[in-house]
Amino acid sequence: MTALTNHTWKLVARPEGAFKPEDFQWAEEPVPDLEAGQVLVRQIYLSLDPTSRGWANPGRTYLPPIPLGSVMRGFGLGVVEESRDPGLKPGDFVQGLLGWQTHPVMDGQAVTRFERDPAIPLEAYLAVLGHIGATAYFGLLEIGKPQPGETLVVSGAAGAVGSLVGQIGKIAGCRVVGIAGSDEKCRWLTETLGFDAAINYKQEPVLSRLRRQCPAGIDVHFENVGGNILDAALAFINDRARIVLCGLIAQYNEVVPPPGPRFLGNVLIRRARIEGFIVLDYENRFPEAFGPLTRWMAEGRLRYRTDIVEGLEQAPTAVNRLFEGANIGKLLVRVSD
Amino acid sequence: MTALTNHTWKLVARPEGAFKPEDFQWAEEPVPDLEAGQVLVRQIYLSLDPTSRGWANPGRTYLPPIPLGSVMRGFGLGVVEESRDPGLKPGDFVQGLLGWQTHPVMDGQAVTRFERDPAIPLEAYLAVLGHIGATAYFGLLEIGKPQPGETLVVSGAAGAVGSLVGQIGKIAGCRVVGIAGSDEKCRWLTETLGFDAAINYKQEPVLSRLRRQCPAGIDVHFENVGGNILDAALAFINDRARIVLCGLIAQYNEVVPPPGPRFLGNVLIRRARIEGFIVLDYENRFPEAFGPLTRWMAEGRLRYRTDIVEGLEQAPTAVNRLFEGANIGKLLVRVSD
Repeated sequence: MTALTNHTWKLVARPEGAFKPEDFQWAEEPVPDLEAGQVLVRQIYLSLDPTSRGWANPGRTYLPPIPLGSVMRGFGLGVVEESRDPGLKPGDFVQGLLGWQTHPVMDGQAVTRFERDPAIPLEAYLAVLGHIGATAYFGLLEIGKPQPGETLVVSGAAGAVGSLVGQIGKIAGCRVVGIAGSDEKCRWLTETLGFDAAINYKQEPVLSRLRRQCPAGIDVHFENVGGNILDAALAFINDRARIVLCGLIAQYNEVVPPPGPRFLGNVLIRRARIEGFIVLDYENRFPEAFGPLTRWMAEGRLRYRTDIVEGLEQAPTAVNRLFEGANIGKLLVRVSD
Repeated sequence: MTALTNHTWKLVARPEGAFKPEDFQWAEEPVPDLEAGQVLVRQIYLSLDPTSRGWANPGRTYLPPIPLGSVMRGFGLGVVEESRDPGLKPGDFVQGLLGWQTHPVMDGQAVTRFERDPAIPLEAYLAVLGHIGATAYFGLLEIGKPQPGETLVVSGAAGAVGSLVGQIGKIAGCRVVGIAGSDEKCRWLTETLGFDAAINYKQEPVLSRLRRQCPAGIDVHFENVGGNILDAALAFINDRARIVLCGLIAQYNEVVPPPGPRFLGNVLIRRARIEGFIVLDYENRFPEAFGPLTRWMAEGRLRYRTDIVEGLEQAPTAVNRLFEGANIGKLLVRVSD
């Protein structure tokens, strides 16, 4: 094999608060020879996701903590360059936990091959047709169970997941109210994505705006943020409301978790349900989601947006765009062309 | 009919914080003539329940607020003295929302007749064989879904509901850990009721004691209290844990609801579920519960305890025993013999 170099970012310190550049170390290493069952992948897009902040902590989350000194964990997409897995061949597109590196050597079992539709941009496979689309689809439909005529509230609504959740909510027949952090984001939600209303939580009083925008109460709340936004939503839940706890980005950088919602009493009175959701539990069912998601895109009922940073070198600083609310849509790093 | 007098406690002020005697007004009124469909009940036992604090607030809970100037709401049990409901006759035992009064006139539809087993003390029908038993039975089994070998934690464990929940948990094959507010209560749980362990939250550090007493984590948490106790439990939940939100007595007297649990992130990571429970939703199914509950009592596997206050006059002060943790088992008022 050719003497390829793998460029990597290793996690070398446990972040306190936000990720800092010095928590990562750049390394360039020769790509090792493949063992039986392994494949060499050239990563094309790396996905930056809020959940990665939890992976960097010393404790176990839904995955083991990332060992210090090893390559930073991340979803990614690429093309097989060499293969010793009989099920994969050079040129195949794959996705999986490729990590923050240019040339991961992976167990063939640890990646998922996908057929690329040439009419669809490749980055869509890390957004609407990847773990993000699956998160919105299963999180909303299986945990949130929206019914026609119900009111759905989505926080982090201009984010990768939130923007899809709101649109799927519209397709399901709901009144959809999004909460986002800028007027530009709010305009995108209402003018382009068809949300019924959007609330700029940085400028507007969320509690009174939610009361006004949800005159029939809230039946489904899809939470990506946590903190005061979750609390405001709980103030207006209807009987049997479903609260999908998909993300709590407002607190991922907190060393001590902040206090939770004051309006927990409403969960009791309303016989509501707050349920945690991790998309990896649905990995075997992803294809179920990709059919409808592809069709809705083709019908123009589902739009997505990507925010692409150029070059793996930028990953350690770019990741904080998520926590600053700087991105609209799915934040990706272009690792190679 | 005889010129009977109905002695009542009316709610005349919205309590701020705890109930105060001046929130109630004693009144003696002639019992009116019955209209068609009505019955006159002589109340024997009045149940004092934490949930009544929420009913006294100005806002709607799962029931409309109690109008100021009307008789204080409460579950109770009594005997029919006169009837203009063809389905009920004098001498029948009934229960329902009889209120804080000696001689309620009720719609026959609004009370439930029950067959009294002479071998069972009458007060049991407001405890294990009433709404309390149904709360423990449906709340634990339908929402908590305990499986053999799992660990169940119960807060307010020496209370009317909690003490039954723990015992039903043992019958379901769980390791059961109770949290209560005195050594006497804890001894009762472990020595008489068969709990595997009990934690005195007023004397012991709940977080470290829970870690020790739940070495395999927590699968079901039955919450009657809220506040720090709920938070401690969330720290140790297992994947797919079920948290039954049955009561939040720690905050019923708070004018501004206190912050909620810090460890909400664990609900997400563990794909756990926090679900509100109101026993009235199961009213039509109560008989389903009373069969097994009666059998378990007869088999000596289910014990209950009552804490009986003598005389309706005492209700306004006695009700605060609930919030002070002064009662062990079901708090009742003996209204008549």
